[in-house]
Order: sequence, then C-alpha cells, then structure tokens
Amino acid sequence: MFYPEPVSKLIEGFMKLPGIGQKTAGRLAFYVLNMKEDDVLDLAKALVNAKRQLHYCSVCNNITDLDPCHLCRDKRRDGSTICVVQEPKDVVAMERTREFEGYYHVLHGAISPMDGIGPEDIKIPDLLKRLSDEQVKEVILATNPNIEGEATAMYISRLIKPFGIRVTRIAHGLPVGGDLEYADEVTLTKALEGRREL
Amino acid sequence: MFYPEPVSKLIEGFMKLPGIGQKTAGRLAFYVLNMKEDDVLDLAKALVNAKRQLHYCSVCNNITDLDPCHLCRDKRRDGSTICVVQEPKDVVAMERTREFEGYYHVLHGAISPMDGIGPEDIKIPDLLKRLSDEQVKEVILATNPNIEGEATAMYISRLIKPFGIRVTRIAHGLPVGGDLEYADEVTLTKALEGRREL
Ligand SMILES: [Zn+2]
Ligand SMILES: [Zn+2]
Repeated sequence: MFYPEPVSKLIEGFMKLPGIGQKTAGRLAFYVLNMKEDDVLDLAKALVNAKRQLHYCSVCNNITDLDPCHLCRDKRRDGSTICVVQEPKDVVAMERTREFEGYYHVLHGAISPMDGIGPEDIKIPDLLKRLSDEQVKEVILATNPNIEGEATAMYISRLIKPFGIRVTRIAHGLPVGGDLEYADEVTLTKALEGRREL
Repeated sequence: MFYPEPVSKLIEGFMKLPGIGQKTAGRLAFYVLNMKEDDVLDLAKALVNAKRQLHYCSVCNNITDLDPCHLCRDKRRDGSTICVVQEPKDVVAMERTREFEGYYHVLHGAISPMDGIGPEDIKIPDLLKRLSDEQVKEVILATNPNIEGEATAMYISRLIKPFGIRVTRIAHGLPVGGDLEYADEVTLTKALEGRREL
C-alpha cells in the first residue's frame, strides 16, 4: 500500500469506467485532489443522481427522469411515425437534426448472433406491442449502418410488414460501418430524407 | 436540451476532468447509467472522501489522510537522508523500488521560468526549514530528468551546500526527458544507486 487509502479507492473507482486503466485512473485521482471541493461534490452528486433519478421510459425505453419521457409526453409530435434506434444517445443524434417529428423506440442493442444477442434480448417485443396498440403508419429503422444494425433492421422489417405498416430504413448517407452517434446533423438529415421502403 | 438533466449534469461533471472531452464524457455518462448502483455510489463516495480526507503532510507535503503522513511517522526510517521529489506520485514510484529508507520532501512542482514558477512557488522554503531543524546529512534530488527538474535540482543544490549537507542527484539511468513516475523499478533502483555528488 503506497497510496493513502482514499487515493487507492478513488483509483479503483475510476478503473471501473470504460477505457480507464491504472495509469489514467491515477492521473484523474491526483487531479481530483487539486480540484475545487465544490466541483468534486458536484461530480459525486451527478453520479448518484444520474444513477438514481434516471429510468427507462415505459413507452419508448429511452432514458428519462420522468415516465413517460418528455418526448413521449409531447402531444405535438406525429403519432403516425416511430423511429427505431439502438441506443438512447441515438435519440439525441436524431433530435439534433430537428427533422424528425414522430416518436421513438429504443432497442438497447442490436441482434448479434456472434454475441448471443437475439431479438428477445433487445426491446423488439415491446415494439410489436406498441404497434398493435398505437396508430402507427410508418416505422423508420434507424439502427446503425453496420452488420448488426442491418440485420436488426431486416429482422424487424420482416416482423412488422404483416401489420400493414410502412417500414423504411434510413439511407446510407452515413458511412457504412460507422456509428449513428458520430454522424453530423447534415449527413443524418440526408440519410433521413433518403430513407427507402424495405 | 436533448438529454434529461441528470445526464447533462454528469457529462458536465466528467468534462471537468483532464483529457475528457464532450464525446468521452457522454460515453462515460451512459456507461454509468448501466453500472451497478453500488459501484456508482462507491465511486461517488471515493471522490468525496479523496477530496475531504486527504491533506498535505505538514512535514513532507506528501498527500495523506493522517498528519504527519505514515512515512514521516515511521521511526524505523533513516532520518539522515531526505529524498526531494516533484509530486506525490513520485513518492509512490520511489517507494516501489524498496531501496530508499529515508524521508521525503515533495515540492509540488519544479522551477519553470517559462511558466512563471519560481522557487517560492514550490515547497523549497519548507525544505530549507526542515534542513535547519532536522539532523539531515544527505539530500537526494530526485526531480524529473527534464529541463525543469534539472534546473530545480541545480537551484536547490546551490542553496543547500552552504549548510554542509551532502547533495546528490539520482543518476540518469532514466531516459532523459522522461517522467519519474513512468520509470520501472529496476531503472529507478539503478538511478538511485548511481547517484552522484552535486
Ligand atoms: Zn418515452
Ligand atoms: Zn510526511
């Protein structure tokens, strides 16, 4: 034990975060020791609040501090369209375009047989339930433009078509193999406009 | 506002840490939402405790949860030698060698005229005070082997010699231009053994 215990504990804590090894954790810990106490308390509080106050929306599965989330509550949105995305951060990417006015459905993942993730492991059953309850005319599949995202889009498309609902896929304006969240607003807007029937 | 407030607050909090931009902060924040609540609470507690329980040792200026620190309290150590380092993490690097049995003095920086850091801005006055109070026979200068570290070592050496104290500099076994904290134990041990009179 070379560090005082509060330092080792903080280093261990930082090492639980992704992409943070021992060296970076040490650097962050020493930085924290020199931060203003208020800033450290704010960060600690933000951690606890994020974990305690956030839940998944019971309608769209987006993360939210309200239930239903502020998007699902917004009655000015277009109830005839649902945009299906993999992750909550993809909702943020879509909202940034200011081009989509419908509602969302967050899958929390994509089908990936390699990783043992099947349709039941992501929020596909919830999506089907919504489609049978709500007055949806179009489902826009905005899963990532990579193998898992495409496979997920194809799978959902085959499931939904029997409902007589229009199923579209956002266009490959985004670089194939990329991540939706890294797309800039213009590319994503183009991809949305160029969506095609599946 | 695209994120629920607890998420934005957490992203802002992470962005106060060094080397963490908006993208990384977002990634960390979403990761936290999926962490076990206990792990998040532990990290939050570790942050607060590190800030609140740690202080600088009134003797050596190392960070510590006790005062004096556990190193300064250890009466089995050799009171005739003080090793001067720039940062608390350098104490850890030295202790890892298990070769040094004296006490430490942490400067919290190095002289750097370019950055406007002079001898009074780091813990050099405290060091002089210790030398006049304690029975020190040798001061080992283990500042970093770069321009600022060398300048600091030269400066301290000139100040201390009039006290009739032996002043040594750890050998350049470490790659010049490097950082003490990244030296492996063997290199650092060699550097310590090969120290020369200044
Ligand atoms: Zn919702
Ligand atoms: Zn001490």
